[in-house]
Amino acid sequence: MGNTRREEILEAAMDLFAEHGYRGASLDQIAERVGLTRQGLLHYFPSKKKLLIALLGRREELNREHLVADHLAEKDWPTQVAEAVAFDREHPALARIHTILMAESLTEGHPAREYFRDHQRTVREHITRRLSERYGDRLPSGLSTQAAAAALLALIEGLQQQWLLDLDQTDHPEVMRSVWSVLLGPTTP
Amino acid sequence: MGNTRREEILEAAMDLFAEHGYRGASLDQIAERVGLTRQGLLHYFPSKKKLLIALLGRREELNREHLVADHLAEKDWPTQVAEAVAFDREHPALARIHTILMAESLTEGHPAREYFRDHQRTVREHITRRLSERYGDRLPSGLSTQAAAAALLALIEGLQQQWLLDLDQTDHPEVMRSVWSVLLGPTTP
Repeated sequence: MGNTRREEILEAAMDLFAEHGYRGASLDQIAERVGLTRQGLLHYFPSKKKLLIALLGRREELNREHLVADHLAEKDWPTQVAEAVAFDREHPALARIHTILMAESLTEGHPAREYFRDHQRTVREHITRRLSERYGDRLPSGLSTQAAAAALLALIEGLQQQWLLDLDQTDHPEVMRSVWSVLLGPTTP
Repeated sequence: MGNTRREEILEAAMDLFAEHGYRGASLDQIAERVGLTRQGLLHYFPSKKKLLIALLGRREELNREHLVADHLAEKDWPTQVAEAVAFDREHPALARIHTILMAESLTEGHPAREYFRDHQRTVREHITRRLSERYGDRLPSGLSTQAAAAALLALIEGLQQQWLLDLDQTDHPEVMRSVWSVLLGPTTP
């Protein structure tokens, strides 16, 4: 029961942060949406900041297996990154909260700033390592694994942002697939 | 004189929006920073929304010649896009306000939503046209001009965001140059 209620609160927080940003949404609004008092909500999450951090962790859990390929043998990598982009399209609330909170974290004294910086470093290093294991220092295209990792992360974030701004555009998974194919280079299976 | 005061107000608004977001900064704070009353400020910009739109236009003016290459003959394109990324690094306030406001515009009822969507469409179409004029439907790498335009825009936004989150990273101009070289393809001068 406690778990279900926690999930409900996280879901309400996700919706309200996506609608108004972290700073624009209040604990009272979140409590009201799940039929709790503010005190009742604080029993599950002792502060708004703690709720934010829990929510970011939850989002990461949901996304983890999709962001970076973990079964390279099964599908070619360009198809996998295209599927990761397509996954975001099926979960627009998650995608939106990520883009909004990451940018909001650039404002002064935002509680999620460190989280996003560390998260970005971790993902970039992870992609670099996966690329190095497979290709060494350079991809078949000639691109360094470091540059390719930064580019992959930038493409994921940037294409997501383009789509969120303009939901009519539907070509982002295919853009991701074809761009990543070129960046890997001609000898990719 | 009127123009100087307008510039001062725009600069103060840029700083305060970058610190607190559009919604987090008040007209009173902006007025105070330039030594005006709220009424005095409203004489130059009749609403907070009008001030935001003017600021976005100003930013666009400052950035325009750097975002997309206009003298292809003079320098190769990868060097030019690297210089555009380097330009952002010399103007962190501009870069920050852009990333923060674009993401904040995804929240409900934000006054800059339409601006960013239209701006993105315009830039994407402009890059596509420039690429088509030079290469036809496909770049020498085999990538379609449409996909390349979406990717270039995503890389500019995504790399900027990575850098803003983690100012210690210094390799983004070089990442941009090398990635764009690979995306264009082997026959690029």
